Amino acid sequence: MQEKLRRLERAWSPRTVAVVGDKRVTGYMWLRAMRPFTGRLYSVQVDPAEIPGIEELGIPNYRSLQEIPDEIDYVLCAVPRAVAPRIVADCAAKGVAGVALFTSGFAETGEEEGIRLQAEVARIAAEADLALVGPNCMGLYNPRAGIRQSGEQPTGESGPVGFISQSGTHAINLSLVAAHNGLRLSKSASIGNAVALDVPDYLEVLAADPDTRVIAMYVEGVKDGRRFFQTLRRVAREKPVVVWKGGQTEAGARATASHTASLASSTAVWNAVMRQTGAIPADTLDEVVDVLKALLLARAPAGPRMALMAMTGGPSVGITDAFARAGLEVPLLSDASYRRLGEFFNVIGGSYRNPLDTGGTLGQNPDNLRRILEILDEDPHVDAIVMEVSGGFMARRWVTQPEALEGTLGTLTAFRDRSAKPFFAVFYAGHMEEAALTIRPRFQEAGIPLFPTYERAALAIRRALDYRRFLAAADGEPA
Amino acid sequence: MQEKLRRLERAWSPRTVAVVGDKRVTGYMWLRAMRPFTGRLYSVQVDPAEIPGIEELGIPNYRSLQEIPDEIDYVLCAVPRAVAPRIVADCAAKGVAGVALFTSGFAETGEEEGIRLQAEVARIAAEADLALVGPNCMGLYNPRAGIRQSGEQPTGESGPVGFISQSGTHAINLSLVAAHNGLRLSKSASIGNAVALDVPDYLEVLAADPDTRVIAMYVEGVKDGRRFFQTLRRVAREKPVVVWKGGQTEAGARATASHTASLASSTAVWNAVMRQTGAIPADTLDEVVDVLKALLLARAPAGPRMALMAMTGGPSVGITDAFARAGLEVPLLSDASYRRLGEFFNVIGGSYRNPLDTGGTLGQNPDNLRRILEILDEDPHVDAIVMEVSGGFMARRWVTQPEALEGTLGTLTAFRDRSAKPFFAVFYAGHMEEAALTIRPRFQEAGIPLFPTYERAALAIRRALDYRRFLAAADGEPA
Repeated sequence: MQEKLRRLERAWSPRTVAVVGDKRVTGYMWLRAMRPFTGRLYSVQVDPAEIPGIEELGIPNYRSLQEIPDEIDYVLCAVPRAVAPRIVADCAAKGVAGVALFTSGFAETGEEEGIRLQAEVARIAAEADLALVGPNCMGLYNPRAGIRQSGEQPTGESGPVGFISQSGTHAINLSLVAAHNGLRLSKSASIGNAVALDVPDYLEVLAADPDTRVIAMYVEGVKDGRRFFQTLRRVAREKPVVVWKGGQTEAGARATASHTASLASSTAVWNAVMRQTGAIPADTLDEVVDVLKALLLARAPAGPRMALMAMTGGPSVGITDAFARAGLEVPLLSDASYRRLGEFFNVIGGSYRNPLDTGGTLGQNPDNLRRILEILDEDPHVDAIVMEVSGGFMARRWVTQPEALEGTLGTLTAFRDRSAKPFFAVFYAGHMEEAALTIRPRFQEAGIPLFPTYERAALAIRRALDYRRFLAAADGEPA
Repeated sequence: MQEKLRRLERAWSPRTVAVVGDKRVTGYMWLRAMRPFTGRLYSVQVDPAEIPGIEELGIPNYRSLQEIPDEIDYVLCAVPRAVAPRIVADCAAKGVAGVALFTSGFAETGEEEGIRLQAEVARIAAEADLALVGPNCMGLYNPRAGIRQSGEQPTGESGPVGFISQSGTHAINLSLVAAHNGLRLSKSASIGNAVALDVPDYLEVLAADPDTRVIAMYVEGVKDGRRFFQTLRRVAREKPVVVWKGGQTEAGARATASHTASLASSTAVWNAVMRQTGAIPADTLDEVVDVLKALLLARAPAGPRMALMAMTGGPSVGITDAFARAGLEVPLLSDASYRRLGEFFNVIGGSYRNPLDTGGTLGQNPDNLRRILEILDEDPHVDAIVMEVSGGFMARRWVTQPEALEGTLGTLTAFRDRSAKPFFAVFYAGHMEEAALTIRPRFQEAGIPLFPTYERAALAIRRALDYRRFLAAADGEPA
């Protein structure tokens, strides 16, 4: 591993952090973001008007990086752009491992001054093998170490997801939305204009990181396409890599130029890169979270054949259309399954060809859920089981009778623990959004992947299947 | 209008209602569903074990329809399937206007007995010009009259949306999800197997209904394709008709056969019907609600050119990709607009080419929102304005400082009232779902169309634009 990557590793799990240039007008946002940091935290600020506020926070302030009587692993720099080259030079002189430039106003403005300043910080960092993150970014996040990109992010508990993002908003939002869905991050990097360290650098470090089991990224453009391709191809065989590309449309590409000075790449080329590397494509933050959920909370299906269950007739049509549109199959079951289902299934107001319209049958006897799952488990035509776990009125029942919800969860987790076939759940909240706020966390705690719509479940499962197929096809091939 | 359609009209706005066969085991679900009925409500039940429970509800019970000393406009029939023909014959003999058969177990079971019974009720209804709704359905909903398909549905306030549904679940859910989104129904019909009255019949009645301004439908199959086409083509020129087709995939079509005994139609034929009639296609309940929102809460854009605003850089790329993927344009603004925006826009950490990345600029001065909207209003390159009104941290501020939310709403409604260009808002809740529960209703009360994702906003606006273009092209053409 290159020296600057070893330094990035060190900065991403720092023992010492310095924030340069934090200010009262932002509520000392950076010092507050670093509050949970488990190591030694310092401030650098020369403005006498700002220093008392920093000292009130109980954080030792120095007038320069050089004055800090400690080695520094990670610097978060929030100075005006004209001052940025001097701070980066100070970092180099002090032997800092990594520095993230929150400072913006560089090449993304399209202005000559910004382009010149960006080239200067890049040159200083390169000469010193300094791990320069950004500029125009929110820096590094490591929940276990307690360094953050925003005071809203959770800390303490670490998880299996590494994230690389050319948008600070997406970096922060992904960590929050993932946590809201029961998924935790190992590390993330908001990489902004990515002038000294680019996507492949972060990818290499996350590939080598033992805490990171799945990698996701939001990328607007890459500088060295060949290196990006080769790194992605190698890493995607070791760990799944979910790639959300911003600026895939012509108008979107114009937006990325203003945002991170990224250059457009053709959609056809990009799609070929996804296919050939085995990277998993995603188009929105929600899609990224859905795919992570499918990858982390269930085995990938061995094939495309889905058994689908819904509570009533209309939804059973909807779930089937959604899965078929995603390119998955909804086959007829085996004759043996039909014989067994026929023994207890309520055919008036229900059906069981596949999809299974189960409302009446489950209403008669809750134990019928266990019986149905067992039959599907043993059916050789089925690779995975997807169940709409509730419609509106049952959600209401789950709120007033939590023991009914716990009973269903008990049946589902017992099945999940015993079956070789993956199980996925859908709960469309509709007007019951308030009830969903209490129901969804119970599925999360039980570790059952739960999706808010048929369409989102279908796409995530399809992506997990595609990745499994890619791995199977690549097996034995040289990387 | 045919006699049976005049009768359907009468049954849909009844002065008298009888529920036949309601039972304790279901909690007298139908009598309870009719509780808000503003006219005279009767029960018919012969089982002596059931009668005391009905009398406890204060509803007069009779042993047959004939014994009720009143004309009956609408009968909801919940008897076992073998008894259904006798009740339908009683309705015919008494001169009832319409009867809805909640009873299921007819052709949708694929059983000979069910098919025979279905043919029999259809024959009896046809001979008497009786408006038979269903069978295998949840009947009629009229919130103003107080007749319902479920005890959960709102009553009292009437709205502009008429809905026809071959799924009872979707009929009920649509009324609930629409209300949750601030949209009310005029009337809806759950039509089940639709043996005597089919989609075109309901469509004709809603087309003539002065309360109904927009019609939506969930349809699994139509019996008379030519009549469906002709009716849809005629009605879609008078009122927008949103069509959600269930069973568009091969597997989905198998599900519709089990659900409502509907026959498959080819996707290509169906898409051609949509295009040629000017009907507005939708693939999910959420899409139906989104399109209704776009149609009812804003003028349709005069053209495809969108001005897009987001709070920060990453989201400005995301909103642009979403609108471009939906086939809408995100053009450069006029030179005059750029001159005016350049006077106050904060270009460091923001940009204004289109999309506009406005966070920093609005943070400096809330009045900048009004200035930006005015410039976009006057820009000749722009047909509509779409704004992501909040990211995560601002949503938090809106909860703690409601006056900030009210300030933004004041600016937006003033703009909406004055501008000829439609305005649409997006609020992606992400992890802030609880905050969304308090924020979304304020946008609803202000009458501003608010969508939960860029993608859903883009598709709904695209559909509204397509309908406007269809009307313009059809103008003057014979229907």
